[in-house]
Amino acid sequence: MSAGKLIGVGVGPGDPELITLKAIRALAQADVVAHFAKAGNASHARAIAAQHLRPQATELSLHYPVTTELPNCSKDYSEALRDFYEQAAATIAAHLDASRTVAVICEGDPLFYGSYMHLHARLAPRFPVEIVAGVTGMSGCWSAAGTPIAQGDDVFCVVPATLPEAELARRLADADAAVVMKVGRHLAKVRRALETSGRLPRAIYVERGTMSDAKLVPLAAKPDDVAPYFAIVLVPGWEEQP
Amino acid sequence: MSAGKLIGVGVGPGDPELITLKAIRALAQADVVAHFAKAGNASHARAIAAQHLRPQATELSLHYPVTTELPNCSKDYSEALRDFYEQAAATIAAHLDASRTVAVICEGDPLFYGSYMHLHARLAPRFPVEIVAGVTGMSGCWSAAGTPIAQGDDVFCVVPATLPEAELARRLADADAAVVMKVGRHLAKVRRALETSGRLPRAIYVERGTMSDAKLVPLAAKPDDVAPYFAIVLVPGWEEQP
Repeated sequence: MSAGKLIGVGVGPGDPELITLKAIRALAQADVVAHFAKAGNASHARAIAAQHLRPQATELSLHYPVTTELPNCSKDYSEALRDFYEQAAATIAAHLDASRTVAVICEGDPLFYGSYMHLHARLAPRFPVEIVAGVTGMSGCWSAAGTPIAQGDDVFCVVPATLPEAELARRLADADAAVVMKVGRHLAKVRRALETSGRLPRAIYVERGTMSDAKLVPLAAKPDDVAPYFAIVLVPGWEEQP
Repeated sequence: MSAGKLIGVGVGPGDPELITLKAIRALAQADVVAHFAKAGNASHARAIAAQHLRPQATELSLHYPVTTELPNCSKDYSEALRDFYEQAAATIAAHLDASRTVAVICEGDPLFYGSYMHLHARLAPRFPVEIVAGVTGMSGCWSAAGTPIAQGDDVFCVVPATLPEAELARRLADADAAVVMKVGRHLAKVRRALETSGRLPRAIYVERGTMSDAKLVPLAAKPDDVAPYFAIVLVPGWEEQP
């Protein structure tokens, strides 16, 4: 009996139409469909791909450990997460050992800042693996905003909002175009870093970019610093555009 | 008579299955389908989307001016290109004025280093515009390579190979993860910059990433510095992966 195949399937940024034909085909052949979700929440990736799941596929919900009582940077938090990924990988490995095809569905692109990568790193050395690239969340956001992001010789940078303020400001000043990810509770700091780097006038705040309730606004015009975790800030380049 | 709609349609990195349902729907409603190509060449974007074009749609081939006799950085080259985009925009504007829906199909994502942006900048202020985000070429490449590109607090940078060597080396040393684009005749310089920045051992050279004749090889193992324009080099981050 040969091992099954692991498929990391990008389902795009949120709009269910931004799924690819290749993702749909992967879901049509999967015996097991796995997805990550916060404990107590439904999976976003599952909601995006819902209409393409086969009724006879086994679903595997991978719920992140409840860690609100632990600070993000603590050793206990890291260990809880590592144990969670180890266990999820072991569960999937058992399906693969039983010759089942396992599709792990992921928002955006599987290998770009995604949880799938933690499974991939553990399973790719042992099993056949295929990746189905997806439209990233950031592409969905600049498309929704209708904002050309980078052109020609622009240097484009993705900067996590978790960086210290001075480092954020340095990175933003050094890039022609940028996206600040994981904005959440860091928005006040991001705003200050954009101001320091002279990029605030160009910055666009985007929340739920490709959904019908999307919120897109120049950051300078946003009156508060309240933002969900997945909000992003676009800093478009291509300054010499006609 | 109301104006038609301009749709910038990303058709993905090359594999025809990496097109989205939204792109297919846009093509099904387009009266005119426009695509860029080098003079004398077929359009890559058209080849990717071929099976989704309606037979009754008008096709508009936008051929870049033949500029091999002019250096890339010359004023004449810039002016020839600017005239070309002006004329292409005027042709499309005439269709939009006649209430036709015009889809401009683009490899990768329309607003990420794409020629479409030159039309968008000229037409978006005057006509209704919609963007259909696409899977980028770089996502297609790291997926084909099965290489997690960036995770957690990684800073990820896209760097054009056209930059001077010292600037390339500085950018590469300063990024946790990077993609070098438009490698072409710059590969020897890119290799030296990767060596200077200590990133050469991690660098992966990718040519025609999502096609059946893809070439993926550690750059350090590539014996020559011959590369087509669209080749890219991946420098994966996430160094602490399990």
